[in-house]
Amino acid sequence: MLERRGVMADRLDQNRVEFLKRDFSRGFIKYCGFEAVDIERGKVESSLNVTDHHRQQDGFVHAGVMAAMADHTAGYAGFTTVEDNRRILTVEFKINFLRPAFGQVLKCSAHVIRGGSNLIVAEADVYDMRKEGPVLCAKAMMTQAAVEISEA
Amino acid sequence: MLERRGVMADRLDQNRVEFLKRDFSRGFIKYCGFEAVDIERGKVESSLNVTDHHRQQDGFVHAGVMAAMADHTAGYAGFTTVEDNRRILTVEFKINFLRPAFGQVLKCSAHVIRGGSNLIVAEADVYDMRKEGPVLCAKAMMTQAAVEISEA
Amino acid sequence: MLERRGVMADRLDQNRVEFLKRDFSRGFIKYCGFEAVDIERGKVESSLNVTDHHRQQDGFVHAGVMAAMADHTAGYAGFTTVEDNRRILTVEFKINFLRPAFGQVLKCSAHVIRGGSNLIVAEADVYDMRKEGPVLCAKAMMTQAAVEISEA
Amino acid sequence: MLERRGVMADRLDQNRVEFLKRDFSRGFIKYCGFEAVDIERGKVESSLNVTDHHRQQDGFVHAGVMAAMADHTAGYAGFTTVEDNRRILTVEFKINFLRPAFGQVLKCSAHVIRGGSNLIVAEADVYDMRKEGPVLCAKAMMTQAAVEISEA
Repeated sequence: MLERRGVMADRLDQNRVEFLKRDFSRGFIKYCGFEAVDIERGKVESSLNVTDHHRQQDGFVHAGVMAAMADHTAGYAGFTTVEDNRRILTVEFKINFLRPAFGQVLKCSAHVIRGGSNLIVAEADVYDMRKEGPVLCAKAMMTQAAVEISEA
Repeated sequence: MLERRGVMADRLDQNRVEFLKRDFSRGFIKYCGFEAVDIERGKVESSLNVTDHHRQQDGFVHAGVMAAMADHTAGYAGFTTVEDNRRILTVEFKINFLRPAFGQVLKCSAHVIRGGSNLIVAEADVYDMRKEGPVLCAKAMMTQAAVEISEA
Repeated sequence: MLERRGVMADRLDQNRVEFLKRDFSRGFIKYCGFEAVDIERGKVESSLNVTDHHRQQDGFVHAGVMAAMADHTAGYAGFTTVEDNRRILTVEFKINFLRPAFGQVLKCSAHVIRGGSNLIVAEADVYDMRKEGPVLCAKAMMTQAAVEISEA
Repeated sequence: MLERRGVMADRLDQNRVEFLKRDFSRGFIKYCGFEAVDIERGKVESSLNVTDHHRQQDGFVHAGVMAAMADHTAGYAGFTTVEDNRRILTVEFKINFLRPAFGQVLKCSAHVIRGGSNLIVAEADVYDMRKEGPVLCAKAMMTQAAVEISEA
């Protein structure tokens, strides 16, 4: 019974999931077109329909697009692990670009690798959804601060 | 006289500067509104007029905006140091967010700290142009590959 | 048949494995006591018997020990993927320290996530071998250059 | 008068400087031979007499030596900015290796670029002291947590 409650506590309430999905796409993120497609505790997946607005001079998706996507998706993965009165600020992140992305859709999968009440460490993988299947294009590791809303 | 020629060689041709300024703002970078304001060999300064499109849920400039600005400005700083038949790809970067940015204008100053024909290391500082003066909000260090256009 | 040869080609020759194991522990790495315990193509595992020499003022393993272990183990993972006339230089790495390590043995597992003839990207995980089992204490991502010995 | 007291407060007490110099070289750091040579508030310089113990297979100083030196020196730079009941833990660092180090002495200069009661960001530069003068060989940026001793 206690364990069952434990499991319950580990699953996000459906209202919370819906709130987080809407909350995900605001300001810069809405402007860029990033959307949350799947949200679980400690894990968020997002998607982007790539347009010419996202490319650089050579037709590849701009590194800045992948960086913003990784940062924001990982930020929400962190957000699912803290109490409702806390928000997430990115302390730092590092991203390696492994291959160019030139497809029509990008996906990002982020998860928390070290939770905490103050500091959170997360990872994010960005995939180029090519015809032959998803190809890992960038990988990021980030440190986040969970700050109380009154502190922020 | 030789030294003078040396100095000449170190200074970018004005046509090249004008080309780089136009070339800077394309695709995602144009969409975001980043502009190059000063270009020297190994050093580029860029600017952004911040709008609601650049903010996150709390009204601060989104970390992704600062990351994209740092990456692109440093990329062009690298670009000024290589031959014309080479382009710059970001291998990786790391960015620390030091303070929130909430002003109307962001500036980014990037410079090459280690040139090379294949690998370049650069730094970028992002400033929030507040009423009391520029405040350092983010600092990044990046590795870039200079690839021949035929290779890319 | 061709595929079988492909598989053969993917497996490291036993002589090469023995050479790499000996080669692993020289200079600083020997001085610190790091040893390679398992070597496959693109993947290396190393081990350290922790002594007081590896600790910091609070009795935890020093962050520098974990960083050196991650760097070197990942360097050899990269080394297994390049031709014999190339050596590996670390271009950069980033490491997050997730938990303190205070046990008697550290293990590091590194693997290549993006091979290449010039640039390689690898990851390394450092585990504290506690009584209750291995605990992930640090995670690193690194960029390596594979340079021809004559170039180095 | 107030300003003078401000200046006093900003200068480290000589006893504290002597304590920090001794405290700097313990455990792994003593074993490696790193020593603090100059300590001010927010800024520490360290030195290493390079021996064969610090080199890798090609005779260059091992990347792990430079990483450990950067991490520890920056850690003490952070340590000078917090109250005496706090210690510094490295959350993460990133280091770029710009040039090989092959000289007899390494110096490291670290300083805090963003102080804070909980999170600190610092930078560290590692120099190879060659005959022709100091050459920048590595540059690191790190995030540190200042934790109360009872918390650690």
